[in-house]
Amino acid sequence: MRPDSALSVSKERRRAVVLLSGGLDSATAAAIAKERGFDLLALSFLYGQRHAIEIEAAKRVGAFLGVTRHVFQTIDLRAFGGSALTGDVAVPKATDLSAIGREIPVTYVPARNTIFLSFALAYAEVTDTRDIFIGVNAIDYSGYPDCQPEFIGAFETLARLATKAGAEGASFTIHTPLSAMSKADIIREGLRLGVDYSLTHSCYDPADDGTACGACDSCLLRRQGFAEAGASDPLSYADLPNR
Amino acid sequence: MRPDSALSVSKERRRAVVLLSGGLDSATAAAIAKERGFDLLALSFLYGQRHAIEIEAAKRVGAFLGVTRHVFQTIDLRAFGGSALTGDVAVPKATDLSAIGREIPVTYVPARNTIFLSFALAYAEVTDTRDIFIGVNAIDYSGYPDCQPEFIGAFETLARLATKAGAEGASFTIHTPLSAMSKADIIREGLRLGVDYSLTHSCYDPADDGTACGACDSCLLRRQGFAEAGASDPLSYADLPNR
Repeated sequence: MRPDSALSVSKERRRAVVLLSGGLDSATAAAIAKERGFDLLALSFLYGQRHAIEIEAAKRVGAFLGVTRHVFQTIDLRAFGGSALTGDVAVPKATDLSAIGREIPVTYVPARNTIFLSFALAYAEVTDTRDIFIGVNAIDYSGYPDCQPEFIGAFETLARLATKAGAEGASFTIHTPLSAMSKADIIREGLRLGVDYSLTHSCYDPADDGTACGACDSCLLRRQGFAEAGASDPLSYADLPNR
Repeated sequence: MRPDSALSVSKERRRAVVLLSGGLDSATAAAIAKERGFDLLALSFLYGQRHAIEIEAAKRVGAFLGVTRHVFQTIDLRAFGGSALTGDVAVPKATDLSAIGREIPVTYVPARNTIFLSFALAYAEVTDTRDIFIGVNAIDYSGYPDCQPEFIGAFETLARLATKAGAEGASFTIHTPLSAMSKADIIREGLRLGVDYSLTHSCYDPADDGTACGACDSCLLRRQGFAEAGASDPLSYADLPNR
């Protein structure tokens, strides 16, 4: 094999680190990475959520997408406190959907995406990977500062300065394919790519058996997204058990 | 109490998150933070080092400095592999000291300081703290990209964009008081502040009983630093047990 040939193979089958939460967005972002020709190195977190069930969903989604490797990191954000998703605050229900995105919700977890991307960067550097996919969305979640393009750009700058690979001239790309998409657009794109959304789980406050509440911001956005996309949500909800 | 008065008290006794590894540098950086009037919120990591003994040192140093709170985070950098400090590579010994800093050593842990600062940022945001101290040194460890001023500056930018506090106008300061100091300068400053260096531990490759090897880069820099500072290192070393 000539070096050129090996290089061209490696260009064709690049690797990307994909952050997989088990939710609808990250599953779609990972499916997009796969369609773009990347082999997927999945990374998921257990971070003291109320919904460790999300991890089971992440495993299912990873297996469905045929990821090359799936690393799970357990981190304890509860040690710092301060968010509904880590146990200190009640999850808000039946919010006026039009209000979502206008302010930073209590479900904001301090520095979460910074921590997630930092681990993704370590994973990428160790595996000689330069591409990272994260399913952040700057529209439906415009209230979260760490979902905005400016944040992502600042992280790319940091990644170059933070690493041995960067010091040697490499740069890292943080792909945010969902950034400018509505929830309905995301669902349409995922369905086009064959994503099985019955494997995903989005609820902030599921019942013990995993049934989605149907009323938290995440459930409301998901249901509205499926309705707008003209598609049927394969999930059962507490208020709609027979779907 | 008038609000103004409460504000002035809070200005006088500000809080700072200090990263404490149990080593000489971070103990000195934390002592400097304390001298500057900060109450200390300590943060230490167990990250699959060979030397979990460092955590015991961090506890001792935290208690010695009278930290308000000490949070320990266990993270698994071994899941990604790739560094002497996480178990994959032999720790180099008896390096030519003049070579340290000229290239990135194998003891470099990918994205380590990025991960550490990300957790520190979460801790800071939750506790309404705007100051973070990290004992990085851009001289003796000039080979590590994530010890350089450019990296620290990029992280400050990221921190503002990453957080609810930043979106509301706050900025975070990453203090690196040791950045431009030689090891001897650091030791002189620590001794001036009364740091008990017998509590610290710096070795990359200690014996099972905790005795420092005396020959790894970290031991060599420490010993040279004490010699240059004209001070006696209170640690025992494997090759100098009766010190």
